[in-house]
Amino acid sequence: MIKNKKVNATILIIGNEILSGRTQDTNTSTIALWLNSIGVKVQEVRVIPDIEKTIVDTVNHLRKINDYVFTTGGIGPTHDDITALSISKAFNINYEIHKEAFKILEAYYKPGEFNEGRQKMVWMPENANLILNPTSGAPGFNVQNVFCLPGVPSILKSMLGGLTNSIVGGEPILSHTISLRTVESEIANSLTKVQDKSQDVEIGSYPFFQAGKLGVSIVIRSENKSKIDECSNQILNFVKKMKIEIVER
Amino acid sequence: MIKNKKVNATILIIGNEILSGRTQDTNTSTIALWLNSIGVKVQEVRVIPDIEKTIVDTVNHLRKINDYVFTTGGIGPTHDDITALSISKAFNINYEIHKEAFKILEAYYKPGEFNEGRQKMVWMPENANLILNPTSGAPGFNVQNVFCLPGVPSILKSMLGGLTNSIVGGEPILSHTISLRTVESEIANSLTKVQDKSQDVEIGSYPFFQAGKLGVSIVIRSENKSKIDECSNQILNFVKKMKIEIVER
Repeated sequence: MIKNKKVNATILIIGNEILSGRTQDTNTSTIALWLNSIGVKVQEVRVIPDIEKTIVDTVNHLRKINDYVFTTGGIGPTHDDITALSISKAFNINYEIHKEAFKILEAYYKPGEFNEGRQKMVWMPENANLILNPTSGAPGFNVQNVFCLPGVPSILKSMLGGLTNSIVGGEPILSHTISLRTVESEIANSLTKVQDKSQDVEIGSYPFFQAGKLGVSIVIRSENKSKIDECSNQILNFVKKMKIEIVER
Repeated sequence: MIKNKKVNATILIIGNEILSGRTQDTNTSTIALWLNSIGVKVQEVRVIPDIEKTIVDTVNHLRKINDYVFTTGGIGPTHDDITALSISKAFNINYEIHKEAFKILEAYYKPGEFNEGRQKMVWMPENANLILNPTSGAPGFNVQNVFCLPGVPSILKSMLGGLTNSIVGGEPILSHTISLRTVESEIANSLTKVQDKSQDVEIGSYPFFQAGKLGVSIVIRSENKSKIDECSNQILNFVKKMKIEIVER
């Protein structure tokens, strides 16, 4: 059997507002679902503060141990937006006005509106590749395998589609969910046996509470559909024997 | 001036379901807000998969560079719940039946219901301190400065109150928010000047979209109320001069 090439990524959320608990991060889920669909597995997420040294050190560590790093946050016009500067320092390249980005924003804003604050958003690492922003103009960018996206979820979401061709993924990671009217402790042993027989498939068990009733969702993940089907059949077998109800979610 | 003792923590989310994007983490915000209120600053969040070596290595790194580490997830009854085993290995102590936890769950369940699956939840690092669970019985635990909580948000939330006395925080981190009907680029320069004058206060700027209108929330954070007031006054001054509307959020 030829083993599929695994392609992995880390998501690096840059933002004090997530660490303080003020803002709930939703970008992780958005990016992870998109990456899964193009065959990239998220192996870690980190949330770090808006501190230059922390960003530089973390990016330099992560870019070496991942195929891709996706950062979110810190590319706006205010003093706490230091991602572009920090990425320049991480790669030891100039932080300068990006001519193409300048043209894009000059055309995007009405005459006179492309003020000093907004011009900060075209300062980037030298020769960065732009990631176009169909929502609010200001582009993200990438340097080598580090892709820098904004923190505002709706803007970030709108930029991923244009990025798909820049990412070389492996086989898409498939997933199948079986939801049951039971509790985890009832199926734990049977599920362990299924997992033990298929070490290269990821089987997760997640309790839920829906319409006043407890349940468990079993999630089977792999790049290989036939392995998912095999595990799924084994699970459906013990579910049938134990007379556990299957539920729609 | 006596400098307040800074107390910091990292939150370590253990769970493939977050990395795959299937589940949206909400525990970070819950834990961070609670920690802020007792004077503990979250300096990092990491999300890692249900892989023993990864958990062991990450816990051993983080517990040395943080006052506290809070883990979530992986303490249920199924095969993918490996947090307690991994913490035992991280500290190089026995993984065994915790007598007190056993008694708690034996009393919690109806006769005959404390089955093999549920008994897995009383296997813990030797001599771990229990964190009581008023919602669903099964306790969390801590070993030294590493506190292990469940992944289910409602259960986790219900356990924090009982934990407050076990955590020694510094001065509570105070925060003040000023929301404005403007865009970031309009105030970026003025805000930079305020931040430059008060390097030990954290000033964040966060765009929002509410009732069809754009706005910016400025968040000022510090352990020192008078410093917050000082920055707040400086901000209100330039806001007044620029005739920017203050909005309620």
